[in-house]
Amino acid sequence: MGMTAAVIGGSGYGGGELLRLLLAHPEIEIGAVAAHSNAGEDIADVHPHLPDLAGRTFVDTAAAVASGAGLIFLALPHGRSAEVAATIPAGVKVVDLGADFRLANADEWARAYGVPHAGTWTYGMPELPGARAEIAAAERVAAPGCYPTAVSLAYAPLLAAGVIEPADLVTVAASGTSGAGRSAKVNLLGSEVMGDVTAYKVGRHQHGPEIVQNLGRVAGAPVTLSFTTTLAPMPRGILATCTARPSSKAGTDELGVGLAFDDELITGILRAFYADEPFVKVLPAGRWPRTSATLGSNTVHLQATFDEGAGRVVVISAIDNLTKGAAGQAIQCANLMLGLPETLGLPVTGLAP
Amino acid sequence: MGMTAAVIGGSGYGGGELLRLLLAHPEIEIGAVAAHSNAGEDIADVHPHLPDLAGRTFVDTAAAVASGAGLIFLALPHGRSAEVAATIPAGVKVVDLGADFRLANADEWARAYGVPHAGTWTYGMPELPGARAEIAAAERVAAPGCYPTAVSLAYAPLLAAGVIEPADLVTVAASGTSGAGRSAKVNLLGSEVMGDVTAYKVGRHQHGPEIVQNLGRVAGAPVTLSFTTTLAPMPRGILATCTARPSSKAGTDELGVGLAFDDELITGILRAFYADEPFVKVLPAGRWPRTSATLGSNTVHLQATFDEGAGRVVVISAIDNLTKGAAGQAIQCANLMLGLPETLGLPVTGLAP
Amino acid sequence: MGMTAAVIGGSGYGGGELLRLLLAHPEIEIGAVAAHSNAGEDIADVHPHLPDLAGRTFVDTAAAVASGAGLIFLALPHGRSAEVAATIPAGVKVVDLGADFRLANADEWARAYGVPHAGTWTYGMPELPGARAEIAAAERVAAPGCYPTAVSLAYAPLLAAGVIEPADLVTVAASGTSGAGRSAKVNLLGSEVMGDVTAYKVGRHQHGPEIVQNLGRVAGAPVTLSFTTTLAPMPRGILATCTARPSSKAGTDELGVGLAFDDELITGILRAFYADEPFVKVLPAGRWPRTSATLGSNTVHLQATFDEGAGRVVVISAIDNLTKGAAGQAIQCANLMLGLPETLGLPVTGLAP
Amino acid sequence: MGMTAAVIGGSGYGGGELLRLLLAHPEIEIGAVAAHSNAGEDIADVHPHLPDLAGRTFVDTAAAVASGAGLIFLALPHGRSAEVAATIPAGVKVVDLGADFRLANADEWARAYGVPHAGTWTYGMPELPGARAEIAAAERVAAPGCYPTAVSLAYAPLLAAGVIEPADLVTVAASGTSGAGRSAKVNLLGSEVMGDVTAYKVGRHQHGPEIVQNLGRVAGAPVTLSFTTTLAPMPRGILATCTARPSSKAGTDELGVGLAFDDELITGILRAFYADEPFVKVLPAGRWPRTSATLGSNTVHLQATFDEGAGRVVVISAIDNLTKGAAGQAIQCANLMLGLPETLGLPVTGLAP
Repeated sequence: MGMTAAVIGGSGYGGGELLRLLLAHPEIEIGAVAAHSNAGEDIADVHPHLPDLAGRTFVDTAAAVASGAGLIFLALPHGRSAEVAATIPAGVKVVDLGADFRLANADEWARAYGVPHAGTWTYGMPELPGARAEIAAAERVAAPGCYPTAVSLAYAPLLAAGVIEPADLVTVAASGTSGAGRSAKVNLLGSEVMGDVTAYKVGRHQHGPEIVQNLGRVAGAPVTLSFTTTLAPMPRGILATCTARPSSKAGTDELGVGLAFDDELITGILRAFYADEPFVKVLPAGRWPRTSATLGSNTVHLQATFDEGAGRVVVISAIDNLTKGAAGQAIQCANLMLGLPETLGLPVTGLAP
Repeated sequence: MGMTAAVIGGSGYGGGELLRLLLAHPEIEIGAVAAHSNAGEDIADVHPHLPDLAGRTFVDTAAAVASGAGLIFLALPHGRSAEVAATIPAGVKVVDLGADFRLANADEWARAYGVPHAGTWTYGMPELPGARAEIAAAERVAAPGCYPTAVSLAYAPLLAAGVIEPADLVTVAASGTSGAGRSAKVNLLGSEVMGDVTAYKVGRHQHGPEIVQNLGRVAGAPVTLSFTTTLAPMPRGILATCTARPSSKAGTDELGVGLAFDDELITGILRAFYADEPFVKVLPAGRWPRTSATLGSNTVHLQATFDEGAGRVVVISAIDNLTKGAAGQAIQCANLMLGLPETLGLPVTGLAP
Repeated sequence: MGMTAAVIGGSGYGGGELLRLLLAHPEIEIGAVAAHSNAGEDIADVHPHLPDLAGRTFVDTAAAVASGAGLIFLALPHGRSAEVAATIPAGVKVVDLGADFRLANADEWARAYGVPHAGTWTYGMPELPGARAEIAAAERVAAPGCYPTAVSLAYAPLLAAGVIEPADLVTVAASGTSGAGRSAKVNLLGSEVMGDVTAYKVGRHQHGPEIVQNLGRVAGAPVTLSFTTTLAPMPRGILATCTARPSSKAGTDELGVGLAFDDELITGILRAFYADEPFVKVLPAGRWPRTSATLGSNTVHLQATFDEGAGRVVVISAIDNLTKGAAGQAIQCANLMLGLPETLGLPVTGLAP
Repeated sequence: MGMTAAVIGGSGYGGGELLRLLLAHPEIEIGAVAAHSNAGEDIADVHPHLPDLAGRTFVDTAAAVASGAGLIFLALPHGRSAEVAATIPAGVKVVDLGADFRLANADEWARAYGVPHAGTWTYGMPELPGARAEIAAAERVAAPGCYPTAVSLAYAPLLAAGVIEPADLVTVAASGTSGAGRSAKVNLLGSEVMGDVTAYKVGRHQHGPEIVQNLGRVAGAPVTLSFTTTLAPMPRGILATCTARPSSKAGTDELGVGLAFDDELITGILRAFYADEPFVKVLPAGRWPRTSATLGSNTVHLQATFDEGAGRVVVISAIDNLTKGAAGQAIQCANLMLGLPETLGLPVTGLAP
């Protein structure tokens, strides 16, 4: 074991998923696990799917910070990481699963989250251009949000290739309920969510600016996004439908010669962009992504089509919001930060049915 | 009882929903119920939620046609109504829940459904401009599809008001599994659909041309629609996210004077358009539609917003695909055709949780 | 409209179901609706499936008591009805959906619910021997619990006939999540309950003594019950598996002559017992009860078998816990108390799929 | 890699689970994968959660038998293994996930499965007394059924200790839908199973005799079991409620001295029996098993209580029916047969929420 990691915020769904993955990680050992309101409780009483942690108890945040861990994961509600991060000594590597350090623009952060901006850390999405090396060199990394992962990876290749118009992206995404966290709210009760699909925060989801930031960097141009989020009756999974109009460059090669702008061309761009990525799978023609195929895996499934009649490209993206959309991606970043193989301890295989 | 109705295709989900609603209808009595492959079986063995039909058996199609019913509902798979309809004598009122007679354009029908076009009947969506009187006068009515109901009613008021651009509509809709019918297919097994959201027929759903036809009539202009359908893990319900760009006319009054183009203006247009409609509810500000609130009801729930940053109007629409999206709307049409109060026997109230 | 009814505790699931059913009741009008913590809120904001109540607001309990209603339904958490009931003037008919007045034995009540016993009202299960007339004559009725309804109606005919042994009943029942109420608890979150079946309160469920009381009366002898409750991932429904050993009298006629003790004999006893009951359906041979077939209905579905090898009778019972198991049965009692037809406003038909 | 394994019947749920687990197994490599009706198809098209198998195709059964694999898993429908097994040469180790070779009594087999008995192989439940060594020595092993695993492991310790009466066991178990296999049947459609709990094959489930055989061996006495199976709306998981009356020996020590027969004594017996078992977890007092905590793991969760009033011991058992109830247990047996550590490649950790 090369490294002991502390987890702060270990009683929520993101924290639980970190623990699940770390239990199978060959080079990172689970150290102190903090959970403010559950301090003193047996971890397996809160996470009964982790019987190997029976007999170990949650500590408080200060104890976890002081535990001597060389790596700390923060899995706290948005807006709560900054205060804890300030107490972590230099030299300790930190990956934050929360939103606190994701946005570069302080005004946008304040607008989206309603509390002052605490700063900006290296953004932890290794598949974006140039990101991998930055993450490897960073001491503190802000792991991306769940929706931003699904949506950014769908659009990035087409924006980078210049074949879609950045000014009119329209995305509708469905998420399982764990995306809303383990908070006791009436609207998240099983009785309410089973048998129900609903829209929420339409056009106002706090993940919108994060996606726009990511895509603007890739496009090298301002991006405009209509972003609608819906809640689906399942514990995990995000399915994002990401549409765009072709740009004037679409359907021409590098010399400007006309090409058929069709499914093959689009999926070819996706395939080329992700050719070396272990966690991104562009599906064979005719097969559309399903969230169930990503369950518990760190894998993104993509498929795309050009609807000529509608004049829109549609990219569908599926991930597990807790794995690639949170804890898995955080560990992927940690692997890079520690100089370990990026894929260590991270399943490509999902659990189905 | 004023009328006896036969149901042909009574063993499927649409047929079962017709029977459920007709059992509570004060003026329509259930006559012969046909189900080709279940002929001779007890209706309650196939539909155990209908114990009042225990002891009655399914007949074959010919027997139902010959039963002397003054009203016949066809609830057959798409492409199967035409042949049966040809055997029904004039004078018998017919409502078809299938797609056979919905489209005016024979080429589009053949492209969408792959079999020759059989003709065009009066289209049965009473809330569209001018439709109510046409339905009341018709002997044969093509009841709309489930997605077309949810989507057309979301866009119609804004297209009629000229405030959105018909040339770039983008819709993503989620449907419960009953929309795919009661057919024994592996991809519809509970083991496959629970815990899963998936996309299907992206940009190629056969309901696309029907929506475009409806909206083109309302807009008085060609409509372009990007239409993505997804399958959600619930038996019933459709949630449609319907986006559009404001037209150049948006935010001006009839004299061209500028107005704030905002949520209030948009929902005001929706409210005015549906002010007298018993089955369309524009929700109060701040409340988004949920499919669960429409369960078993003939009601459409709508809410809208203008996302200024994205430059898109978003209308969310929720229905029960089997009720307002199929059997309920068919009975609504039948009420009109029979000169009965339009709302007779049709619940506004849903079943929740 | 013959009667105005107030509902106290109108924001919970039982209260919402009362409102749903009363909206369709031809002789009972909805009067004041109280909900302590939601007073002042629009009823349709809390119950979006009831758009006909939009514009009406919840009042507080005192206002509802003072509203002049001739009938009051109490739909409060267990242990909270007694205090309110004490403020309701004589002459007002009251049906309590809570447990406060169900048990005759004060010690058992205190043991099960942990607060002092407030008294005993007429028990509102019309299908039990002699109950109908008592309810019709009562001013105050304690409507039964959900599990007691499903289990008591399964065993009652066989105990009354003396063919099963009252001393060794073993029942395992599964309930949907609405049985636990609309309380914001982590263990009831959708993320926790979807994909999960779990046992709870094994051998200690507070409904145990109520079942034993009911069955002891029917059997005319002490009853011993092993009662295990499980939570299933669905909003509504109870499926109870009720087993018993044949008594020494089983398989003999009234003169003691031996008969084949088999499925036919057992279901014959059930059929005879419920021959005149509008809400109890003994299914045809070969068809087992499904909770989905009872959704939203006031109907009990029963089926039984004698497993000769195991020496056990098994009766399976399905109900909707919120309808026949709570609000529907309460209205059934109210109909009797008001001298109305017992079935008025109560659906036999369920909603499926 | 020490061993290449072929999988025959690789397109079903049991086969898919074998492949999922074997992909992560450090010592067993996946060889030929046969699926009769899918021969020639890409494995990842059938199992999209297994992207690492993309590009590999299903072969036919004969090709898999002839592939030279040293280990073959059979994951065929019940009654189909015998014919294939007859073609596998001696020296090849075989684990059958089907029922064909589980029962010792040919008459009982024929009664339960309706086809002639093909023989009896070593029964593959390592946790039963004496079984581990037999499995390690065997060339052909019949892996147990899903219900028999959940139920046998619940009762075994108490029967072995003689503290419960073998003559009156009463079990009710709920299973997820994958237990019924990947067969396109209307009653298994998502529309039918979501929102529904139903009973099936009451007292006649083909797994009954297998449980009775297992428990009879442990008890050293004939066992009588009332066994009711129910279908729950989730893809995976079994929760078994296993009740029994205390025997005359209950509550006495080995010398016959009286002890308090209570929860502690019972769970103490379970804990002692499974003290060295890596895959059986007796939960701490107060925590009941949940199927969700076992998802994707090879772990059994147990809890028990003595309900003194009812005179019944209740043991609750939870497993994942596809893992510990099928593929995981089969690999556990294969590990023993190959001389590998028994736990190799088998997760104790589940996936939640």
